[in-house]
Amino acid sequence: MLQENCKYLPGIKLGTNVIADPDLESAVKDADMLVFVTPHQFVEGICKKLVGKLRPGVEAISLIKGMEVKMEGPCMISKLITDTLGINCCVLMGANIANEIAVEKFSEATIGYREDKEAANRWAKLFTTPYFLVAIVEDIEGVELCGTLKNVVAIAAGLVDGLDMGNNTKAAIMRIGLREMRAFSKLLFPSVRDNTFFESCGVADLITTCLGGRNRRVAEAFARNGGKRSFDELEAEMLHGQKLQGVSTAREVYEVLTYHGWQELFPLLSTVHEICIGQLPPTSIVEYSEHTPNLSFVGGSTPCY
Amino acid sequence: MLQENCKYLPGIKLGTNVIADPDLESAVKDADMLVFVTPHQFVEGICKKLVGKLRPGVEAISLIKGMEVKMEGPCMISKLITDTLGINCCVLMGANIANEIAVEKFSEATIGYREDKEAANRWAKLFTTPYFLVAIVEDIEGVELCGTLKNVVAIAAGLVDGLDMGNNTKAAIMRIGLREMRAFSKLLFPSVRDNTFFESCGVADLITTCLGGRNRRVAEAFARNGGKRSFDELEAEMLHGQKLQGVSTAREVYEVLTYHGWQELFPLLSTVHEICIGQLPPTSIVEYSEHTPNLSFVGGSTPCY
Repeated sequence: MLQENCKYLPGIKLGTNVIADPDLESAVKDADMLVFVTPHQFVEGICKKLVGKLRPGVEAISLIKGMEVKMEGPCMISKLITDTLGINCCVLMGANIANEIAVEKFSEATIGYREDKEAANRWAKLFTTPYFLVAIVEDIEGVELCGTLKNVVAIAAGLVDGLDMGNNTKAAIMRIGLREMRAFSKLLFPSVRDNTFFESCGVADLITTCLGGRNRRVAEAFARNGGKRSFDELEAEMLHGQKLQGVSTAREVYEVLTYHGWQELFPLLSTVHEICIGQLPPTSIVEYSEHTPNLSFVGGSTPCY
Repeated sequence: MLQENCKYLPGIKLGTNVIADPDLESAVKDADMLVFVTPHQFVEGICKKLVGKLRPGVEAISLIKGMEVKMEGPCMISKLITDTLGINCCVLMGANIANEIAVEKFSEATIGYREDKEAANRWAKLFTTPYFLVAIVEDIEGVELCGTLKNVVAIAAGLVDGLDMGNNTKAAIMRIGLREMRAFSKLLFPSVRDNTFFESCGVADLITTCLGGRNRRVAEAFARNGGKRSFDELEAEMLHGQKLQGVSTAREVYEVLTYHGWQELFPLLSTVHEICIGQLPPTSIVEYSEHTPNLSFVGGSTPCY
């Protein structure tokens, strides 16, 4: 029985009550609470296998970042789980760099829920420890989109690092990124609340991810190589099998932006994708940020050009 | 004629139209626009000397962080200038680390104004360059308090760095700091708008200052020394005559909190001051953050303890 993840968290004991079970059906058969943590492209397939296999009244929570882009529009992962399995699903999002939590350094997290506050409180109680503080927010799409979109901004931040632009520029890019995250979320889901972006899943997760996350790190290497080595190549070399969410999320977001004709409203999110696929050079990340349009639907200031 | 600041920006040409004039009266006598950039403790004295010496219709802008704590409550520097001289005064706040702007790296800034949008636009036009982007916001107190309070949060961030707590903890402390900045500002000035904290003066300036600013740097050294060497001593050694705003702002904020009996509502802001004066050890910055109360007047989540 494995009680250590030798590859990604070597030296950290996972506890004797953690059982790794590769048989999906056996793993879920007595479960009351399901925690989804796979890369997002596998969720739909896993859920389909679980139909009819779950106990009645089972609760789910998703820690997964990403979205499914479908003909009828983007579908958040929690919604995919709820719709496929007919069960309630909350989300839990950062700011959580895994190896720092593993050594019990103080962290916060945010649980997003839809209506069922009792369920959210049960999850919060389950996850909370003295060094891991969980708050709940009735804004499931806002929380989930924060966790998802911040990976795209982290790529922008990594590019700025790779171009040695300094902290003012990096902070500006992170702020413009947060602004676009908020505007994009509110356009897709008008119920999304501004306050969610002040929660741990919002500004704090953005900061953590833009300081230390793997999207940032690989993007920095990408910019240092002048965009001549692809993200796929750098990912394989630097992450030992872990995947970058930011590149695929940038593509998913770009599909949504293109479908609605919103690219010009979201220069940062668009530009990240265009840089990732080699259509623009890494330096475009800073050039483009000078032309951020006024997103009047999120309120705020009048930029002066 | 000096066109270089040899001490703080060596090698940067300031332009031939910059004239250093130590005679205050002669410096202001033909001026239409006054930019205030002194440490905040000198402003009141300077303003008193300027009474009756200014041209009619002169406009002011303050880049100064801090506040005057008076018997009748805190007075922001822009208000002090307006009240003493009877002139309109805007404020301009970060995210601006000076030496990065000096080498023309992309930065943003926010101008806060009270009612007179025309004046704010004139200032914005004056400061804006292709690499320095200025937005205007009708929330002078919000903008000014962002610039002021972020220095206290930067001390907290520096302590976390000095304690080697990692990025999750640092992001959590920055987020709790931003939350307390917002709550404190709104309690003092109910007109303060949430959106201001999404501007460059808010989240971006907080990020820049917590990543690279001098408050952060000296606080890191303070924590590494276990609080055994005072901020004054470290400041003298590390900053070559520049002053830390964060320590004095923390004291000013603490006076306001004590006066109103608000310390428990603002554990981060309070704790920073108590650490600065040696009443608590540097490690308290993390212990205290676990007990952040729910500041219901800023809305948001229900923390679960």
